[in-house]
Amino acid sequence: MSDNEFPNTVNSKVKSKLKEVSTATLTSQLLKRGFRNTFIPNLKPTRSDLQMVGYAYTLRYVPAREDFGMEVNYDNDKDVQRIAVESIGSEEVLVIDARSSMEAASFGHILATRLSMRNAAGLVTDGALRDSPRFSELEFPAYYQGAHATTSSIIHYPVDTNIPIGCNGVLVMPGDIVVGDAEGVVIIPASLAEEVAHDAYEQDLLEEFSLKKVKNGLSIKGVYPANKETFEEFQKSRKDK
Amino acid sequence: MSDNEFPNTVNSKVKSKLKEVSTATLTSQLLKRGFRNTFIPNLKPTRSDLQMVGYAYTLRYVPAREDFGMEVNYDNDKDVQRIAVESIGSEEVLVIDARSSMEAASFGHILATRLSMRNAAGLVTDGALRDSPRFSELEFPAYYQGAHATTSSIIHYPVDTNIPIGCNGVLVMPGDIVVGDAEGVVIIPASLAEEVAHDAYEQDLLEEFSLKKVKNGLSIKGVYPANKETFEEFQKSRKDK
Amino acid sequence: MSDNEFPNTVNSKVKSKLKEVSTATLTSQLLKRGFRNTFIPNLKPTRSDLQMVGYAYTLRYVPAREDFGMEVNYDNDKDVQRIAVESIGSEEVLVIDARSSMEAASFGHILATRLSMRNAAGLVTDGALRDSPRFSELEFPAYYQGAHATTSSIIHYPVDTNIPIGCNGVLVMPGDIVVGDAEGVVIIPASLAEEVAHDAYEQDLLEEFSLKKVKNGLSIKGVYPANKETFEEFQKSRKDK
Amino acid sequence: MSDNEFPNTVNSKVKSKLKEVSTATLTSQLLKRGFRNTFIPNLKPTRSDLQMVGYAYTLRYVPAREDFGMEVNYDNDKDVQRIAVESIGSEEVLVIDARSSMEAASFGHILATRLSMRNAAGLVTDGALRDSPRFSELEFPAYYQGAHATTSSIIHYPVDTNIPIGCNGVLVMPGDIVVGDAEGVVIIPASLAEEVAHDAYEQDLLEEFSLKKVKNGLSIKGVYPANKETFEEFQKSRKDK
Amino acid sequence: MSDNEFPNTVNSKVKSKLKEVSTATLTSQLLKRGFRNTFIPNLKPTRSDLQMVGYAYTLRYVPAREDFGMEVNYDNDKDVQRIAVESIGSEEVLVIDARSSMEAASFGHILATRLSMRNAAGLVTDGALRDSPRFSELEFPAYYQGAHATTSSIIHYPVDTNIPIGCNGVLVMPGDIVVGDAEGVVIIPASLAEEVAHDAYEQDLLEEFSLKKVKNGLSIKGVYPANKETFEEFQKSRKDK
Amino acid sequence: MSDNEFPNTVNSKVKSKLKEVSTATLTSQLLKRGFRNTFIPNLKPTRSDLQMVGYAYTLRYVPAREDFGMEVNYDNDKDVQRIAVESIGSEEVLVIDARSSMEAASFGHILATRLSMRNAAGLVTDGALRDSPRFSELEFPAYYQGAHATTSSIIHYPVDTNIPIGCNGVLVMPGDIVVGDAEGVVIIPASLAEEVAHDAYEQDLLEEFSLKKVKNGLSIKGVYPANKETFEEFQKSRKDK
Repeated sequence: MSDNEFPNTVNSKVKSKLKEVSTATLTSQLLKRGFRNTFIPNLKPTRSDLQMVGYAYTLRYVPAREDFGMEVNYDNDKDVQRIAVESIGSEEVLVIDARSSMEAASFGHILATRLSMRNAAGLVTDGALRDSPRFSELEFPAYYQGAHATTSSIIHYPVDTNIPIGCNGVLVMPGDIVVGDAEGVVIIPASLAEEVAHDAYEQDLLEEFSLKKVKNGLSIKGVYPANKETFEEFQKSRKDK
Repeated sequence: MSDNEFPNTVNSKVKSKLKEVSTATLTSQLLKRGFRNTFIPNLKPTRSDLQMVGYAYTLRYVPAREDFGMEVNYDNDKDVQRIAVESIGSEEVLVIDARSSMEAASFGHILATRLSMRNAAGLVTDGALRDSPRFSELEFPAYYQGAHATTSSIIHYPVDTNIPIGCNGVLVMPGDIVVGDAEGVVIIPASLAEEVAHDAYEQDLLEEFSLKKVKNGLSIKGVYPANKETFEEFQKSRKDK
Repeated sequence: MSDNEFPNTVNSKVKSKLKEVSTATLTSQLLKRGFRNTFIPNLKPTRSDLQMVGYAYTLRYVPAREDFGMEVNYDNDKDVQRIAVESIGSEEVLVIDARSSMEAASFGHILATRLSMRNAAGLVTDGALRDSPRFSELEFPAYYQGAHATTSSIIHYPVDTNIPIGCNGVLVMPGDIVVGDAEGVVIIPASLAEEVAHDAYEQDLLEEFSLKKVKNGLSIKGVYPANKETFEEFQKSRKDK
Repeated sequence: MSDNEFPNTVNSKVKSKLKEVSTATLTSQLLKRGFRNTFIPNLKPTRSDLQMVGYAYTLRYVPAREDFGMEVNYDNDKDVQRIAVESIGSEEVLVIDARSSMEAASFGHILATRLSMRNAAGLVTDGALRDSPRFSELEFPAYYQGAHATTSSIIHYPVDTNIPIGCNGVLVMPGDIVVGDAEGVVIIPASLAEEVAHDAYEQDLLEEFSLKKVKNGLSIKGVYPANKETFEEFQKSRKDK
Repeated sequence: MSDNEFPNTVNSKVKSKLKEVSTATLTSQLLKRGFRNTFIPNLKPTRSDLQMVGYAYTLRYVPAREDFGMEVNYDNDKDVQRIAVESIGSEEVLVIDARSSMEAASFGHILATRLSMRNAAGLVTDGALRDSPRFSELEFPAYYQGAHATTSSIIHYPVDTNIPIGCNGVLVMPGDIVVGDAEGVVIIPASLAEEVAHDAYEQDLLEEFSLKKVKNGLSIKGVYPANKETFEEFQKSRKDK
Repeated sequence: MSDNEFPNTVNSKVKSKLKEVSTATLTSQLLKRGFRNTFIPNLKPTRSDLQMVGYAYTLRYVPAREDFGMEVNYDNDKDVQRIAVESIGSEEVLVIDARSSMEAASFGHILATRLSMRNAAGLVTDGALRDSPRFSELEFPAYYQGAHATTSSIIHYPVDTNIPIGCNGVLVMPGDIVVGDAEGVVIIPASLAEEVAHDAYEQDLLEEFSLKKVKNGLSIKGVYPANKETFEEFQKSRKDK
């Protein structure tokens, strides 16, 4: 658990559902509740085969200046990025506000390895990764905007952790639930996580049911979205299992 | 065949040639005829192993507004996108003008499955796909600008089909021939399809001939582009086969 | 060797080190010497499995105009791009200033094959490649901004070789050392190549040592960056081998 | 009145109110009714001293291609842009979807003079104007994204009028109310025009009342937004006049 | 004075020099001290006739979400933007980090009037202003990226004040000296303000001296930059005054 | 006359016509001759009241690097920018390829004053100007992309003059004719200058004739473009004068 412990907002049942649903379905459930802007655009996964679920642990960078940051040698006792790495708790996702800058890296492979060893749940940055090719070696999901070899201090000065941030234009509050799949990352307000997880799980089952019909040659009419008949058939099929 | 049937502008021989030539060669043939802007930029394939050939069936979106679109539940009887999906004919490619917007998705995986079942020839959008990771499961070529999990209705209001559109800055007329390979998508005016297909096929054969020479260590001089001697040698080699 | 022969600025020992270090480490060594802007942003490799090392052989394009360039048929005797292809020496990397334009291609697959046959060390362009899917067939590293099927002459008019150029905002002087890995491309001033190669090689060894500790569960404190104890341990471990 | 006559959706009283309120206030009233995206971004006025009010008469361009558009000599009988100019009615605003392209002009000074002579209410384009310096001579409000000397046909092919369009990402339906001031242009759904105009007019009066207090040195607390006391004082002051 | 009082880092003599020098000269003096990135790009003044000098009072926005911000009615007791407006001290410049977003406004005219009444020294935002045309009425300098009529709450959620921020890619620390002229805004680290002000003032005098010579027809050689002779002549001319 | 003297490609009669025609008309004449891309986009004039006509004298910058450029003190004997300023001839326009970079200035006010004193005809840069507000004092036309206070050497390293360059995507050959008005800048190939000037002058007269008719309330039909009758009437009116 990190210094900024969050209440255990979601139980293991909720978590296991979030491990199975798609970010596409999650955004639909959030949209039904009025939330329009929850998917972080323009990110790609380092490991498209891993599903990421965790609590947001935020880290904010501001532009570096010759009197702040810009050291080539990092001081693990004072550098806020390094402190964050050694503070993050298990089940937490480090989410970085790097102002969407691609002028240098925002995070690297050795630090990500350390996150992984601390049982952090993942890494999300709206900036660049360095040593990006080696992220595929890690059994650890990371999402990033692109690659840049140059170390972060030339551009970024890390200033604080666990305050509200923007990540490619999406609000991330500390403790929000962060879910990532091969498509990208969605941010779920903690208070909605349980119901959204439940409804998304149900929606995914129903959509698989509809998809099977479409694959069998049926029109989408009545099938996707499901009308009353299709829905009843779906429910019956569930009971039969 | 769709509601907006096109004349059978290209015969099966032409089609089979278009199945084999590269979009690079096709743009060269179009350029020789004065057409400078026929390749749709910034798209990527979901299935780089498939070659797409078909007639353009266009679909146009405008920005959604709270009094138009924006429903989370789609009405298959009224939604122009859904009507398009159930109207498209075999051998047709659905080409979407999503104003190059990446703020939300423009199309999803279940609808694409339905297109595939209707024997549509492919899908092209200058916007985003959702459930994009699952497109690799489909034996169906799709081209898109990027991934976004959020459903299209939040941003896009589909208004009409089979009118001229722009797709990432390229004109697409209904009935134009649409060819896609791993590099991207080229739009061929229907009236030029036959001669362009023929000449591109010939050009590709010649270029393979030149390439073989280059691979054997020859200079490009006289070889690429082929001078008279190389061209005669090429023609002779064809007869010998 | 090209017409513009460079002195043998780096010996084979230096080269073999550059073949093993990452571009990330190289930028760190350059940054320590005050060089902030040496990594070419926004490029991707055609062959992420190959490491590229060579001397910069630069080629500059300006916008084409109907009275310059724009021919569909290239003249190998006059076209500066073609002359460059037949002039480049072994161990040289063709670096193209295509003004970062993605409106058409800047280079293609057959010419790259010829570069490869001439034992050129690689290709870097801040523009687009055409026939890009076929670059994976070549045992030859190329870096590019994206794919575009349309031939270069419609947009680009090649005007000179081996003068200073910009490549996606980074200075490239003829004879600079160009190194590429799966992350991208770094430009090393020739006069610094030897010391940078040496120190980067050492840094990489040390970082592997630190990484192993991190993988074993140690904190980054004292380990990354290495403090005195870790560094001495590292040096001892080297002697033991 | 144009060929596509709109019902007289707003009476002269509503119009005169819209002539006096700011686009800032109008967007607030629309936002109160749930409409988030009604202000067209990135436009500037040719005449910041004129207030524009009228009905949307839409015109849509697609990319030109060598077989469509691209003539230097326009045919007034066939060119959809020219037909629109001679069809637009008084009190109508020509709103052009030029795909936000700045590669060439979308409209020019002589045609705008003709619009003005037909008593059109204004011109809005998400593209460029040519002969832009001369628009200041016209007693006619126009809004545009920038200037470009090159004639529109090189890039734009006008295809239809009075269908829904997007204008810099904002939906414009034929018959929508278009209001412009020195800040830019807001699109009001016709059905809401009367109540929005009324409430915006009231809001503007109240804000002037608040502004006077702020200018007198009062804190914004209780004043902006107005609390109950300030509001009652405001209403009393109106009666006193 | 604001709640976050800064020490009186610059005296009135320094301030009066900063009132007279150009931002161009200030950046040169900062560059001589190694600071490369101190001018905030892409801003324009509302009042190009006013020179702005003051201490940075920072305000940070994050993206709004339906559960944070997005109210149309602002609560002056809780809204961090409103609290900032009523907390800012005289001689302070409100500098807003609006993530360079132009999707809605970041500040408006009535609040700016209040800033002015509180004797704040100015306003800088990397976002948009609303009611922007009315800023010319105010005897108060403001710098902004563009105009947008829509109120800020739809996009921005103000979260904290007087922490380090980025403003269009430039670091702004609370208490930094902010200087604006018709060209734009420069940020001066407080510890350097005195010497930078002094040297910039001297540089400006010398450049006027050089300029006069250039206007008289002299070559720039020896004149700009001034060589020893020109510099001695300059110093003599100062004494003579 | 500069070191790179151009033949007197246009006589004074041609020049005086170019002083009167609009860039809009010039692009139309160039388009009639097949030239599509001659207007430099995204530039604004410092003096919209001056018409600029002259020969292109080109200057090329590449990105600065810590071992090239980046000096704060300029050496007038070695700095290519400074040499260009003292080499440019009367009637010549300095056209700068600054790679459209807005990260720092590309030229300043004192150097522009010197250009003016040397009777240069103007200044065009696709980068930024510094001390931009003072350009309005100069009786000298300059065109630029925006303002930036920081001196050019931090970003730009000037390398050569009078070679072909790109300027915001438009080819500029040394000796090309450069014409600027309040709308922007057009580049005319020297060999076409005379006929283009003549025909543009005629076109402008005819368009004024058409405009007068439109102002009198006539439809554009037959008037703009002029049909045979209108054209004959125009010619008669000229003779009558």
